[in-house]
Amino acid sequence: MGGDAGPSVVVAAVARAVLRHPSMKFILHGDETEINALLAKRWIKLSQRISVRHAEAFVRMEEKPSLALRRGRNTSMWHAIEAVKNGEADSVVSCGNTGALMAMSMVQLGVIEGISRPAIAGLWPTMRGQSVVLDIGANVECDADMLVDFAVMGEAFARAVLGLERPLVALLNVGSEEVKGHESVKAAAHILRNVSLPMEFYGFIEGDDIAKGTVDVVVTDGFTGNIALKTAEGTAKLVIGFLRLALRRSLLSRLGAVLASGALKALRRKLDARTANGGMFLGLNGVVVKSHGGTDALGFANAIDMAIDMAKSGVVKRIVADRAGVVAPERKAVAS
Amino acid sequence: MGGDAGPSVVVAAVARAVLRHPSMKFILHGDETEINALLAKRWIKLSQRISVRHAEAFVRMEEKPSLALRRGRNTSMWHAIEAVKNGEADSVVSCGNTGALMAMSMVQLGVIEGISRPAIAGLWPTMRGQSVVLDIGANVECDADMLVDFAVMGEAFARAVLGLERPLVALLNVGSEEVKGHESVKAAAHILRNVSLPMEFYGFIEGDDIAKGTVDVVVTDGFTGNIALKTAEGTAKLVIGFLRLALRRSLLSRLGAVLASGALKALRRKLDARTANGGMFLGLNGVVVKSHGGTDALGFANAIDMAIDMAKSGVVKRIVADRAGVVAPERKAVAS
Repeated sequence: MGGDAGPSVVVAAVARAVLRHPSMKFILHGDETEINALLAKRWIKLSQRISVRHAEAFVRMEEKPSLALRRGRNTSMWHAIEAVKNGEADSVVSCGNTGALMAMSMVQLGVIEGISRPAIAGLWPTMRGQSVVLDIGANVECDADMLVDFAVMGEAFARAVLGLERPLVALLNVGSEEVKGHESVKAAAHILRNVSLPMEFYGFIEGDDIAKGTVDVVVTDGFTGNIALKTAEGTAKLVIGFLRLALRRSLLSRLGAVLASGALKALRRKLDARTANGGMFLGLNGVVVKSHGGTDALGFANAIDMAIDMAKSGVVKRIVADRAGVVAPERKAVAS
Repeated sequence: MGGDAGPSVVVAAVARAVLRHPSMKFILHGDETEINALLAKRWIKLSQRISVRHAEAFVRMEEKPSLALRRGRNTSMWHAIEAVKNGEADSVVSCGNTGALMAMSMVQLGVIEGISRPAIAGLWPTMRGQSVVLDIGANVECDADMLVDFAVMGEAFARAVLGLERPLVALLNVGSEEVKGHESVKAAAHILRNVSLPMEFYGFIEGDDIAKGTVDVVVTDGFTGNIALKTAEGTAKLVIGFLRLALRRSLLSRLGAVLASGALKALRRKLDARTANGGMFLGLNGVVVKSHGGTDALGFANAIDMAIDMAKSGVVKRIVADRAGVVAPERKAVAS
């Protein structure tokens, strides 16, 4: 167990989660001696609600997923996913190696029938609240069918977890006109215009529409989605950095910053990457949430919240049902 | 002539540019009667420095580039590019239809020998100043050779126009490791590691590195670049929007905002899209700058500044020389 900072962040997060979710049970997989020592430091006693499972090894952050898969059956990551597979746990949260987590989850939990590849979804703060964006990094190359699958999964997530009745779904593109963009994006739009699902297909949106909150679900390939996400994170930091510099310019502006410090703190909270921490793995027969490797206890606790919400809402069943209901126009034509 | 707002923005911008650049001459292409009336309103007299060329027609903003090319030989856009081709003008600035401007420029000015396709470059504000990002929208699909060409053009631009001796150049990717990313990006990196140019090849950067200013030149395909640019614009607006809301929350924060209003204005100026307005077309035998269609006089005047800088710095010649000097490692091997 661990991510960049090791098990201490996870234990601190579980200490929060135990209070937030009084009816939940937690199993910690990792080095038993180390975890027990960390729990003891926080006066947390092992109980029906918190148990520790010893694992011989752990997956290193820089390890290649294929290698982790071959030699990793004795790791904490493998055991944690196995607990979901066995029905012992409802979900797994990890801040470890993303590629290894995806590979091990695919092998152990399996991919939902009809879904070509799982995707990683993220929550994005917008002018109107928050939107789901997927894929944010699992699949670098995506064809039209994969993008359609992502739309189905994003729609199911928005309904099950965010409670939207009829989510508005769009494909991320370079222009709103029909003629522009990748062939795969155009072909996916053609299919999505004709599927019958409890969603509204908006068509194409451009990059600035994400933050505007133009739609509830933004569908894109993992290359573009990951770059868009990180570009947005970088831009938010840049603006905050510029603001900080500007406020230091004069005595008057410094005084103003002191008076407005409550507002500035609220702004930082709103943009805090920890509140939307967690990449939700969609398309698997089980709930897997990836917390950011460099997060702290608050961030990891929020990823735990997300995993609990996903398990409770039955998002996996929803995806299974929605995917089964999608008949692409071509296939329809063949059947009739 | 015109963009979204018509010739009035262009005339107002030229009124500024005439003062900023006392030795420059300007030719305005468009509806003569309309332009003359707008000039008269501003008490600007036709002279050696400002002349008007009548054009029968103009390219509509939503017109397909192929159609504009076929039927557009009598448009102001065509005539303006022709003036550069004839050597009558050193550069052309337009806030019209981007696709048509690129198509007409390629036909009339031609593409630099050895360059597969021109790209559109933009200036991006960063923590360390500004960086060049290309392509931001001309080419949706790019292979490795095109990305290498973009690196050569970006490097030449950074040296000629920004005055950097040895620009740091990187490819935008989803991870800094060798194994990740599109095949084309990986193949381009392989070539760029082995070319001899007055630049430093950094390798891969991720989305958040753009705003950090990790490198001087960011190379990417036009799909990803356009989405990254618009996502950044949307995010900057979101943060400013959140800041505005936060500052309105209490009487104290409102008072603070008043005291810090100078600093907040400086922030807005720094993030003002107009100061970095202009997509620079690189790879053509001539200087073409595309101003944002929805910009105002200040934005268009800045695009004119950029065109003048590019023409003065001899960026086209620099690209021609640099491109001729690039020998891909494969070709080298064959030659030896």
